[in-house]
Amino acid sequence: MTTAQSQVELLVCTRCRHGEGDDGAADRPGNLLMQALRQVSLPGVTITPVECMSNCARGCTVALRGAGRWTYIYGDLDADAHLQTICQGAAAYRAAPDGLVPWRERPEHFRKNCIARIPPMEST
Amino acid sequence: MTTAQSQVELLVCTRCRHGEGDDGAADRPGNLLMQALRQVSLPGVTITPVECMSNCARGCTVALRGAGRWTYIYGDLDADAHLQTICQGAAAYRAAPDGLVPWRERPEHFRKNCIARIPPMEST
Repeated sequence: MTTAQSQVELLVCTRCRHGEGDDGAADRPGNLLMQALRQVSLPGVTITPVECMSNCARGCTVALRGAGRWTYIYGDLDADAHLQTICQGAAAYRAAPDGLVPWRERPEHFRKNCIARIPPMEST
Repeated sequence: MTTAQSQVELLVCTRCRHGEGDDGAADRPGNLLMQALRQVSLPGVTITPVECMSNCARGCTVALRGAGRWTYIYGDLDADAHLQTICQGAAAYRAAPDGLVPWRERPEHFRKNCIARIPPMEST
């Protein structure tokens, strides 16, 4: 059974170059974003690194998913500018049992930079 | 257990306007794409309509997913031009137990118009 406050997963594309040159995997913007997210408090959110989520044209990229929930993919993210956005969005997502966060409760960046969404496998 | 030839799912965004005006839900390009796909042979592929996959800027949109497989989202699709592409891509996806189709075996449109991909939930 999925409850409103069950664990959710935040996938982070760690190999994203964010349109920059390749200064080595450790310094890639995607990896820096993941490292920054590991330093903040995200109760009930498991952070999972992913090697390329194939949204290279609009990285950095994260996705939120959980059992019984819609999966949402967000792009055009930056470790310096959007940590708070990601934290707020992840908390709102966790509070929505089906992953469908009301429009007005989504961070503005999430509203404008949703790359795609996928329905829960259980619903289809 | 996931086998190479197990059932996979083809999600189709049925509300996609493909940059056109709204001539009613039945005539939307996304719905026409789904109707066209229902007319072709797709062994082992379940077609699932989805009301908006939030890839509106690059529709029409489909996604391929299955238990234990990576999920792939493809865009810029057209019912007239890309039926064969989708059929070929879905068959290759079904033949790959983890959903990872070798680059050269992917239809060209799929190579150039992958919107995003998500790892299998079971792997993380």
